[in-house]
Amino acid sequence: MEATYRALRKHGYGNLTTQDIADEFENSKALLYYHYEGKDELLIDFLDYVLAEFLDGLPRGDRTPREELETLVDALLPETLSEEAYRLQLSMFELRMNARHDEAYREEYRHIDDELTAHLRDILERGIEASEFEAIDPDAEAELFLSILTGARARRVTVFEPDEPIGSLRAAIDAHIDRISA
Amino acid sequence: MEATYRALRKHGYGNLTTQDIADEFENSKALLYYHYEGKDELLIDFLDYVLAEFLDGLPRGDRTPREELETLVDALLPETLSEEAYRLQLSMFELRMNARHDEAYREEYRHIDDELTAHLRDILERGIEASEFEAIDPDAEAELFLSILTGARARRVTVFEPDEPIGSLRAAIDAHIDRISA
Repeated sequence: MEATYRALRKHGYGNLTTQDIADEFENSKALLYYHYEGKDELLIDFLDYVLAEFLDGLPRGDRTPREELETLVDALLPETLSEEAYRLQLSMFELRMNARHDEAYREEYRHIDDELTAHLRDILERGIEASEFEAIDPDAEAELFLSILTGARARRVTVFEPDEPIGSLRAAIDAHIDRISA
Repeated sequence: MEATYRALRKHGYGNLTTQDIADEFENSKALLYYHYEGKDELLIDFLDYVLAEFLDGLPRGDRTPREELETLVDALLPETLSEEAYRLQLSMFELRMNARHDEAYREEYRHIDDELTAHLRDILERGIEASEFEAIDPDAEAELFLSILTGARARRVTVFEPDEPIGSLRAAIDAHIDRISA
């Protein structure tokens, strides 16, 4: 999984070959080919891994729900991106496009969207309970927030230059967080 | 342009050839090849045409700003889509992905996003003036709304089945419009 991560950061998804991933793999390459029938099978496992790592890596406990939400936005939409981080973020979107033609990708991205919505709902519910957020509908707001994040990420990797700051996109999201805060 | 529209609805973008477009073209096919050096040049002109037709076709005058906003959401995110309309909506997203690798597409999608943001800002400003919307910041709200629409459309064409209703996505947007309304 780490080898796939490095390969995507270096090469992006467009030109990626299983050999590129194997080149980053320190263990037996035969093992890689033994485990996975093809690039897509490996990448779907990778998406699962990235999701788990991402959710696991989010700070909890020492932050208020609002701070958690802001950290999530920072993690998914940092103001600026290195060339490699940009390539990875673009790859994630290109992989999403496969969902249209490939049932396994579709299922994986449904799963990703469901997990992110559940995570957002959980933050919002705790924030409402703690009176940090207004009495909003956590289901509708989590759904809306996922569309906002998905849309802002799509816009970033398509119409913004890799090193172009996304101040206007972020300001709009920050203003939205302000609005739902008590 | 109408020939391109029909060809995209029939074939989608993935497998589209200039010949597919020429096949839908009732006038001289030589004319098509004379005007455009390649498929991409034609498609960028097409995107410009679709944007102009779309903005032109939106009802005005007889509706309140809030109704205009709801009509815009209906137009971009109808509850259900025919197979052909779905293919067209997916094509629009696949064409957006070209922006990453192709400067001409990037410029075109920047233009599309700018025009849509300006249109949204105009609706919001008139709605605020008419006290139909709360005293929101029209710039930040227009930017946010475009991310919402882009994200919801991206999610629809990737994780939803072509004929699957998008009630949850729409309900979240409707609740958001409710919230910003006075």
